[in-house]
Amino acid sequence: MLTHTTTIRVQYHETDCMAIVHHSNYIRYFETARTEMMRAVGVPYAEMETAGVMMPIIGGECKYLVPAKYDETLTIRTTIRNKISARVRFEYEIFNESGELISTGSTDLAFMDSVTRRPCRPPAAIAALNTQI
Amino acid sequence: MLTHTTTIRVQYHETDCMAIVHHSNYIRYFETARTEMMRAVGVPYAEMETAGVMMPIIGGECKYLVPAKYDETLTIRTTIRNKISARVRFEYEIFNESGELISTGSTDLAFMDSVTRRPCRPPAAIAALNTQI
Amino acid sequence: MLTHTTTIRVQYHETDCMAIVHHSNYIRYFETARTEMMRAVGVPYAEMETAGVMMPIIGGECKYLVPAKYDETLTIRTTIRNKISARVRFEYEIFNESGELISTGSTDLAFMDSVTRRPCRPPAAIAALNTQI
Amino acid sequence: MLTHTTTIRVQYHETDCMAIVHHSNYIRYFETARTEMMRAVGVPYAEMETAGVMMPIIGGECKYLVPAKYDETLTIRTTIRNKISARVRFEYEIFNESGELISTGSTDLAFMDSVTRRPCRPPAAIAALNTQI
Repeated sequence: MLTHTTTIRVQYHETDCMAIVHHSNYIRYFETARTEMMRAVGVPYAEMETAGVMMPIIGGECKYLVPAKYDETLTIRTTIRNKISARVRFEYEIFNESGELISTGSTDLAFMDSVTRRPCRPPAAIAALNTQI
Repeated sequence: MLTHTTTIRVQYHETDCMAIVHHSNYIRYFETARTEMMRAVGVPYAEMETAGVMMPIIGGECKYLVPAKYDETLTIRTTIRNKISARVRFEYEIFNESGELISTGSTDLAFMDSVTRRPCRPPAAIAALNTQI
Repeated sequence: MLTHTTTIRVQYHETDCMAIVHHSNYIRYFETARTEMMRAVGVPYAEMETAGVMMPIIGGECKYLVPAKYDETLTIRTTIRNKISARVRFEYEIFNESGELISTGSTDLAFMDSVTRRPCRPPAAIAALNTQI
Repeated sequence: MLTHTTTIRVQYHETDCMAIVHHSNYIRYFETARTEMMRAVGVPYAEMETAGVMMPIIGGECKYLVPAKYDETLTIRTTIRNKISARVRFEYEIFNESGELISTGSTDLAFMDSVTRRPCRPPAAIAALNTQI
């Protein structure tokens, strides 16, 4: 199991007229969390793309338990629980400033050659993470 | 079963540097489709909010099968398959201009009194849809 | 002078916790209006990009006169007033359902070869619009 | 003159299929920069809203000089140059990691009573900033 924690600050444009964060933005928070995890474990996503491998999203889900509000600092815990193969699942838990669990979710990503746009194997640096999972 | 079909046009700002629609925007397409369905069946969401009932999102999921591209006209088929109770599930299928199924997904919503922000029953006009489901 | 009118419907995710449309989204409405104008005058932007010319934005401004609200249908009038040269200025006026002018703005775009990413001349089909301006 | 500097990291969803940051997102970067400036000078915007004063945007403009790219860390320098009266202008300069000035812009905001939604005076804590400008 590989775990990483990051924080984000809710922006005004991410709220909606229900005075809470619009649900679509959690998907973007997940992306930020996943990206910071990859950077932290030594395989920055931007470098992977430069090296010719993209990670398209193939699926995802999210549960909304407690609304997030403007200007809150949210803590996102990201976990890879299953060995990385042709795909990888990132799981997320979001906590608000009171430490309440406000959302859970996951994203499934594949690996794709950025030139041919065909599925490909995970880069060696990614596959090597399996020893820690 | 209640079904409705709407179309949306992919905007430039919805694409990302993978040259496809960013996955978070499908969640927004689902919202547009759901809103147009509610309008079509005679219970516009905006009027429901004015009348004091909000429908917060409590969960959702999405599968990405084929990427959507800039300026494509996407067709979204929205379905309510299960009776509406304290919550309602909308299911979606997105098709591209070639008629390919490019995404499936669903959203679960609850009913909330907009003043007390407590769960409430679905408005009568919504509950009445159950005769058609 | 070349003029075109289009309408857009305000989406929930475009509103913010001030219960109005977030100001950044007007910039996106301008883009939709400009794109529909280009389609209407026979030079769809997507085709231009396919043919190798991109139109990066080099500047823009917006005035916010009256707030836009959720689910309103907004009418956007787009005008090209000045001859197209190495750049083109689109000007916009947004009206709400009561016919009030709620916003004015403009965007300046250049022409760029999509391969070399260097400035280029406007495509012939674009330059030909000057006879109507 | 009051000046503040903050940084933001470009997110994937902020890029578009031109492989650069979509121009509408600069407006959102400006908002983040302005919000962090207000927090730094002791008048957090969220607290102001709680205290009953909102700051609606009445206008803004942006120049795009050099494109911003995915995953870049951008530095935004925010300046208030003119005394705060019934309105306030924030000016911005964005620099990329190479220190290049990639964008300039400004936003004009007013003060509004959040209950009556009528224009109001700037709160004392805001007006007090004038001694530093």
